[in-house]
Amino acid sequence: MADLQAVHAMMAADRASQSLGIELVDCADERASTRMTVRPDMVNGHGMAHGGMIFSLADTAFACACNAAGPVTVASSGDIVFVSPARVGEVLLAEAVQRVGFGRQGVYDVTVRCGDRVVAEFRGRSHRMATPGRGE
Amino acid sequence: MADLQAVHAMMAADRASQSLGIELVDCADERASTRMTVRPDMVNGHGMAHGGMIFSLADTAFACACNAAGPVTVASSGDIVFVSPARVGEVLLAEAVQRVGFGRQGVYDVTVRCGDRVVAEFRGRSHRMATPGRGE
Amino acid sequence: MADLQAVHAMMAADRASQSLGIELVDCADERASTRMTVRPDMVNGHGMAHGGMIFSLADTAFACACNAAGPVTVASSGDIVFVSPARVGEVLLAEAVQRVGFGRQGVYDVTVRCGDRVVAEFRGRSHRMATPGRGE
Amino acid sequence: MADLQAVHAMMAADRASQSLGIELVDCADERASTRMTVRPDMVNGHGMAHGGMIFSLADTAFACACNAAGPVTVASSGDIVFVSPARVGEVLLAEAVQRVGFGRQGVYDVTVRCGDRVVAEFRGRSHRMATPGRGE
Repeated sequence: MADLQAVHAMMAADRASQSLGIELVDCADERASTRMTVRPDMVNGHGMAHGGMIFSLADTAFACACNAAGPVTVASSGDIVFVSPARVGEVLLAEAVQRVGFGRQGVYDVTVRCGDRVVAEFRGRSHRMATPGRGE
Repeated sequence: MADLQAVHAMMAADRASQSLGIELVDCADERASTRMTVRPDMVNGHGMAHGGMIFSLADTAFACACNAAGPVTVASSGDIVFVSPARVGEVLLAEAVQRVGFGRQGVYDVTVRCGDRVVAEFRGRSHRMATPGRGE
Repeated sequence: MADLQAVHAMMAADRASQSLGIELVDCADERASTRMTVRPDMVNGHGMAHGGMIFSLADTAFACACNAAGPVTVASSGDIVFVSPARVGEVLLAEAVQRVGFGRQGVYDVTVRCGDRVVAEFRGRSHRMATPGRGE
Repeated sequence: MADLQAVHAMMAADRASQSLGIELVDCADERASTRMTVRPDMVNGHGMAHGGMIFSLADTAFACACNAAGPVTVASSGDIVFVSPARVGEVLLAEAVQRVGFGRQGVYDVTVRCGDRVVAEFRGRSHRMATPGRGE
């Protein structure tokens, strides 16, 4: 069952997400969604949302999804395909869902959308930290 | 030959990189390096530099490297492996270099380090926009 | 609508898939599934199915899915996470489905399973070749 | 120091590589190179070397590089960018080198070439199996 208290505590301590205005919209077992509005201070030199900002939004949804089950879990890697550019003022929604879990690892898919338009497809791999006494 | 004026103009317009304090350290043909200090407002809920901040630093080095040759080039995708966590106050250096170019595409590798310690390994794919009259 | 004749003609010419005993199980718009039995000549030095054999199965499902719509489409890249080892005699099924299409590109996810067990998760990017007169 | 006996024993048991005619050309600490000639039974439905065959060649070089140090090490994931097509009769050389090692993990880059032409760029992640008494 999702440990929403742990996720909310994690988000309360996540100053990077706060500074980007990322909000947790929803969270349940192995899934989560986050939202961010593209601000003028988030664009790159081509006038589009910086890839790092879109990655940050997706990565935060991923972190909430993979920590919803309790034990501390970190991202070991992530890859992102940029599908369409996002512009200032657009509201982006990232939806993360676990694709598969195995041992202490997991693969999560995150789709970032602006309305119906896909902005990016992210896939992340997670690693659950060892917990004393769990015998893993 | 590197078109450093184009890169500097791009960085001057890159408000996301500016808000993260990312500086262009060096730029030449198909390579570039950027630097960022991890600030207290860049940590995630586990007290480490947020993956999105590290990705942003690497992505900016990548953008400078692939735009050094002139025509507007954008990232089509990127993947990152997180090797070691980075903490508040640490200075991170990202070094981007083109691995291969083919047609309008390129593959770039970016290593993010804190001193001698590797923090992350990033690989990005670029796509150069069509230019009228180039016949591509 | 899926152009199954084109897919069957492609598979008939795909000598690599034939030599691995890969069969097309099903194909429809932007989705396809393929099957392969792990033979004794497909194991690596650790006695498990070679990663390249599992990649080949997934890549063939991906190729069928992205060519089902007609114009010639090729893989531009692929990544695979190995979830569990596969052994000699096991029958593997790869199911490919398009995640998103944009311009001449597409992102496809392929899950390789042995029964209910996930063996690998593959994600590929496709590129549709230019067709004279299509104005792309 | 490279444990070449272990690598040669691994290759002697690698029936998949043998059936593809993959030879170990060179092996040293954390690096290795392999060679394969594209045979008529290795092409896909478009008449080019099947992506899975190119992946297999790169994956074998990767396996030799990451097992050269001794303890059994397996691939946990791999990604490949297809740079140029390869045709029947062409001789492909894959050169693998470790990019970074951390804990029981490693990142390796493999470039596949035909002469001077780059055919593919592969990046793999390895995982060294736990050894009794090593305390990891």
